[in-house]
Amino acid sequence: MERLNAERIRLGMVGGGAGAFIGAVHRMAARLDDHFELVAGAFASDPARSQSSGAALGLDPARVYDDYTAMAGREARLKDGIEAVAIVTPNHLHAEIAKAFLRRGIHVICDKPLTATLKEAKALAKAVDKGPGRLFLTHNYSATPMVRQAREMVAEGVLGDIRLVQVEYAQDWLAEPLEDTGHKQAAWRTDPAQSGPGGATGDIGTHAFQLARFVTGLELEGLSADLASFVPGRALDDTAHVLMRYQGGARGTLWVSQVATGAENGLQLRVYGAKGGLSWRQEDPNVLWHTPLGQPMQRITRGGAGSGVAAAAVSRIPPGHPEGYLEAFGALYTEIAAALRDPEAAHLVPGIAAGLEGVAFVDACVRSSARNAAWVKLNL
Amino acid sequence: MERLNAERIRLGMVGGGAGAFIGAVHRMAARLDDHFELVAGAFASDPARSQSSGAALGLDPARVYDDYTAMAGREARLKDGIEAVAIVTPNHLHAEIAKAFLRRGIHVICDKPLTATLKEAKALAKAVDKGPGRLFLTHNYSATPMVRQAREMVAEGVLGDIRLVQVEYAQDWLAEPLEDTGHKQAAWRTDPAQSGPGGATGDIGTHAFQLARFVTGLELEGLSADLASFVPGRALDDTAHVLMRYQGGARGTLWVSQVATGAENGLQLRVYGAKGGLSWRQEDPNVLWHTPLGQPMQRITRGGAGSGVAAAAVSRIPPGHPEGYLEAFGALYTEIAAALRDPEAAHLVPGIAAGLEGVAFVDACVRSSARNAAWVKLNL
Amino acid sequence: MERLNAERIRLGMVGGGAGAFIGAVHRMAARLDDHFELVAGAFASDPARSQSSGAALGLDPARVYDDYTAMAGREARLKDGIEAVAIVTPNHLHAEIAKAFLRRGIHVICDKPLTATLKEAKALAKAVDKGPGRLFLTHNYSATPMVRQAREMVAEGVLGDIRLVQVEYAQDWLAEPLEDTGHKQAAWRTDPAQSGPGGATGDIGTHAFQLARFVTGLELEGLSADLASFVPGRALDDTAHVLMRYQGGARGTLWVSQVATGAENGLQLRVYGAKGGLSWRQEDPNVLWHTPLGQPMQRITRGGAGSGVAAAAVSRIPPGHPEGYLEAFGALYTEIAAALRDPEAAHLVPGIAAGLEGVAFVDACVRSSARNAAWVKLNL
Amino acid sequence: MERLNAERIRLGMVGGGAGAFIGAVHRMAARLDDHFELVAGAFASDPARSQSSGAALGLDPARVYDDYTAMAGREARLKDGIEAVAIVTPNHLHAEIAKAFLRRGIHVICDKPLTATLKEAKALAKAVDKGPGRLFLTHNYSATPMVRQAREMVAEGVLGDIRLVQVEYAQDWLAEPLEDTGHKQAAWRTDPAQSGPGGATGDIGTHAFQLARFVTGLELEGLSADLASFVPGRALDDTAHVLMRYQGGARGTLWVSQVATGAENGLQLRVYGAKGGLSWRQEDPNVLWHTPLGQPMQRITRGGAGSGVAAAAVSRIPPGHPEGYLEAFGALYTEIAAALRDPEAAHLVPGIAAGLEGVAFVDACVRSSARNAAWVKLNL
Repeated sequence: MERLNAERIRLGMVGGGAGAFIGAVHRMAARLDDHFELVAGAFASDPARSQSSGAALGLDPARVYDDYTAMAGREARLKDGIEAVAIVTPNHLHAEIAKAFLRRGIHVICDKPLTATLKEAKALAKAVDKGPGRLFLTHNYSATPMVRQAREMVAEGVLGDIRLVQVEYAQDWLAEPLEDTGHKQAAWRTDPAQSGPGGATGDIGTHAFQLARFVTGLELEGLSADLASFVPGRALDDTAHVLMRYQGGARGTLWVSQVATGAENGLQLRVYGAKGGLSWRQEDPNVLWHTPLGQPMQRITRGGAGSGVAAAAVSRIPPGHPEGYLEAFGALYTEIAAALRDPEAAHLVPGIAAGLEGVAFVDACVRSSARNAAWVKLNL
Repeated sequence: MERLNAERIRLGMVGGGAGAFIGAVHRMAARLDDHFELVAGAFASDPARSQSSGAALGLDPARVYDDYTAMAGREARLKDGIEAVAIVTPNHLHAEIAKAFLRRGIHVICDKPLTATLKEAKALAKAVDKGPGRLFLTHNYSATPMVRQAREMVAEGVLGDIRLVQVEYAQDWLAEPLEDTGHKQAAWRTDPAQSGPGGATGDIGTHAFQLARFVTGLELEGLSADLASFVPGRALDDTAHVLMRYQGGARGTLWVSQVATGAENGLQLRVYGAKGGLSWRQEDPNVLWHTPLGQPMQRITRGGAGSGVAAAAVSRIPPGHPEGYLEAFGALYTEIAAALRDPEAAHLVPGIAAGLEGVAFVDACVRSSARNAAWVKLNL
Repeated sequence: MERLNAERIRLGMVGGGAGAFIGAVHRMAARLDDHFELVAGAFASDPARSQSSGAALGLDPARVYDDYTAMAGREARLKDGIEAVAIVTPNHLHAEIAKAFLRRGIHVICDKPLTATLKEAKALAKAVDKGPGRLFLTHNYSATPMVRQAREMVAEGVLGDIRLVQVEYAQDWLAEPLEDTGHKQAAWRTDPAQSGPGGATGDIGTHAFQLARFVTGLELEGLSADLASFVPGRALDDTAHVLMRYQGGARGTLWVSQVATGAENGLQLRVYGAKGGLSWRQEDPNVLWHTPLGQPMQRITRGGAGSGVAAAAVSRIPPGHPEGYLEAFGALYTEIAAALRDPEAAHLVPGIAAGLEGVAFVDACVRSSARNAAWVKLNL
Repeated sequence: MERLNAERIRLGMVGGGAGAFIGAVHRMAARLDDHFELVAGAFASDPARSQSSGAALGLDPARVYDDYTAMAGREARLKDGIEAVAIVTPNHLHAEIAKAFLRRGIHVICDKPLTATLKEAKALAKAVDKGPGRLFLTHNYSATPMVRQAREMVAEGVLGDIRLVQVEYAQDWLAEPLEDTGHKQAAWRTDPAQSGPGGATGDIGTHAFQLARFVTGLELEGLSADLASFVPGRALDDTAHVLMRYQGGARGTLWVSQVATGAENGLQLRVYGAKGGLSWRQEDPNVLWHTPLGQPMQRITRGGAGSGVAAAAVSRIPPGHPEGYLEAFGALYTEIAAALRDPEAAHLVPGIAAGLEGVAFVDACVRSSARNAAWVKLNL
């Protein structure tokens, strides 16, 4: 995983000024395996805040911007301008920013969800099609070694035909009206203007949806969603209960909530096939439980017996030495680096298609719920 | 819990001949605290099989029957005839058998679900109203100490207003067409004539539904159910995914399956309120997880610190000494004994109302699913 | 397991009056599978207390005694006198009581440890040799299905040569000077006159020692014990740390404590052989973890795949339906019944040899600790 | 944690050529929070191998050495020479290498154990005293947030007086004679010439010892160690069982093994005081279990409720987002950076004293075991 015999890729960042959680995550992820070097950024639209953030990070002031358009333009012209940009702003800004860089041939590493609205997502998909920049979406959980292991086992037929898919993502940080206290993360996530029409559905539902999709490979036939908001005055859903029907006959539920008191970051996937079942929990990420029908349940650990090449490809240290959230995020960055260095290389990093599906999932949930949980299809 | 200063209650049994699982469970449950003495039975409709079962159990041959009507009639006339009867037959026989005993003043301890059909359930409810016998339904999980603890905490407002209720019951013993192999338990549970219109929905869905109802006290506003059967040729559902809306605004999902490969007896309830959450798993029954909002998660153990009077009332041994499935079942029997000895005594044993709700739940699931998961209400 | 085609064995009890924990446990255990009928008892040396205890249990007053010698004498003469007696008194009374019954041909079911002192244990061993009564020792954990499974796997060579044996038993109920508060159980367990020279060593150390011995079959080569008492004024050890060397080369530790704050009944055994390892925890008794070298860890559940005949022989209900402490205790009683009905039958119930070893273990710990944890052998 | 408003510290490395595990770990740890920049190295004594390793890492060939003395000399003279060096060689080389850098004022970040022998450790301690370089020892587990939390709680008296300390470290990677297969890591760890007199005792026992010492603050009064080697032909212990007595009266056991089949990296610490207990497992590092006497067990999570400032100081991301082995290692590097930038700053990074204690612990174990587990003191 560590960079060996290669140059660092020059990276820029839009968003992620001082105090932002996800910006720092992207930087740590980019550094872990050493494939990137942060050299430019538009960390905030306020010039002073952007400059002070850039200075704190040790960047050349000339490459700290308050305007992403200016940044895209200048960096594209520089001889040693950025090759890729990480977009870590609220959702409603993703599309425009991404397009500004893509059309200049600067590759985009975009936080999820792809965009705030399906319309934006479709427009962005067109922009990606045009290129020349490529787009990568940081569904970080999909780069967790044991998620890769699960995907590999499903693909190899270890579970037989998939029958049931139960995915959930429970948090409790919005159990109270945190958005009314000046909490920035809470404020934009509960604001339709910045998040789009989905609240928890967009913020964590897209992760849950993508995880199930990534591991099982199953496409959605239709869904029936019942969205709810439990905190008075909250404009967006903080909870979604969804019946899922997959093509080929598998069924299941997806439920997500940000008011599930006691839950921290409870993303969990359980898949049951005709020949066996798998279970994975994000909070215990180094373990994948596998039950071959008629055999004892097996605890497959990252790097341990039964853990295969797909897991090893995104793993750094021996079994029993826990890797975590940042390592998976870092693996995604490392795969992106490999993909950028060799445009022909096969890779598993989610891209525009996954991003579009995610936003279409949110759109479908909102449409279904508005019609009292009617069955709807993804509008792709 | 142990019988002290009281006479044993004379018990009969219908069903439960040699090899039947649940009959033996009822007998162990009845014996554990010593409040009952099995003295009569109609263990099978085949006379020889009933007699040999009775003989093996050491019963007086004169009190072993092959016809429950004859049993009800004669036992009612005997001076030391049975005071109560345990009904452990397939579902479709419950109603008629129960009525035969109830009208003769013999109390009925009936396995769940109450009946195969809602029509039967309603008729039985009328019979119970008439009396003079009383009816108890063995939703054994509701007598588990930590389930009682959960109920008590919800009732005391520890969780605040309930927002989310996630209940599930996953098994895998029907992942393959076991019913085609001569397996008796599988055969009747997948046969609409014996089980009624619900398969897994009736067999384990009623437990899941009752558990959520018992702990939260919430009444259902409506449900949207998607039933499925994954084993070719199976006439009844082996899986149900249900969106739940409760009166007062709580929502959640209920999912049950008997094809969830790797699951043994995975009944699990999670309840999230405005002030805290609770989680309980049947396979680890002595533990209740409690998260008061803003405090660390607490592991409340049966009899340990934080475990209160409701749990203690159905518990026998110190914390750390696991009680299990049979103990909860036995606690139900012990509570039934107390209720029979003092008809005025308050108790928590499910009765005809819970039984009727359970069958109405199955009926609602089937109706909803037939209409593509339309929202329906319980037909009570 | 349930009694079928057999008569109940007539049982007496010495000790176990109202309020005693272990007496009620023995009665529940004896009832669970219905092989015994309690018909006589000397529940307390105080006549009124013994009579009221017997009356509460519904016994014939003529068969309730305040003197175990009188009880042994009269019951031996009765045509329907007791066939076996459960001794559930403090340790220092075991030997004399047992001898009174054994010599009259009444079989003894004795709670552990066998006696308070090694001298008593050796004398009792001679009495057992003479008969005609037989002696059974209720090391209940050894009848837990997954402990039997572990023993079977070791015996079959699944682990290869055993290298490491780690056993521990941690409780916290004596973390404070409970014995000073009038707590009866605490009082006698911390009193050398009633317990013998070992405190925690005798009370729970004997269980831990027996569990390791039972599962691995290994005999002790020597031990080095460091006993301690952390509560001021306590006369007996509440903690023991012991280095263990087994014949054949295996080694390990045994530690027990009754002041391990937070521990409830934390008996745990881990065995590591050249070809694999096993782990079992009493508080999660239905699960045995097995790691074959070079394969993923397996979760073997009672009755599930990989669970064999030894476990099945002491198990009643399907996998996923937890059995607990009382079920294992009951299995021991059921095996004792079988052994009494067929004196030639092979069985796994601990007897005088295990009892003697247990007391010799306590004696060795005390001797070793007195010599600053010198290596000592069992004095058998 | 992320570097803000500071320059990167120039770092060198000795050892850690291609394929070495711990070298890459140090590099990732150094990069994670961006406080260090690797600019020089003597990665192997073979010139070609050192150069190719340096080239792969993108270093200036002029700053890649095959001789650490040459490296120390030249780097000390360079204007932009390294400020610190990470030593990641086998144990027997630590002391000489460290001294070469320390005396030139280049700070040393040394992997554990400090040295192969106590003599070397004492000599190195003298060198550290002389300076001007400082020495930091990478006992990475001590920088895990929940270990810091545990230490803070003990220091604040939350547990009351400590009574019991149970620490263990179980692995199985040496269950077979891996050293005979050409496995480099196994070869040097089982070679007295490279590892010193302790095998598992040195490799993982020092971690276990340091963890207990770090969290409890207790100094050792004496120990009694029984070392063993289970793989034929192995020159060093692969297992140690140790009785521990701490100053002030606490006692406990320490056991470590590298043949515990099924164990991956099972470092676990349990501490029991008069007022409560704590438990932490390295494989589930984000959780600390706390049982205040008389209250339910609490699950304190990194960053969650009950997690305090000490944990927060070494933590990056929100609760529920697992941090792991590399994050703790990285936190140590980040603390070292802070300590280097401000020589007066208080910090918790283990140094020469901890290193000396660790080697003295190994020495004591070996001496004790040679005398049949006699009690010995640390020779400090």
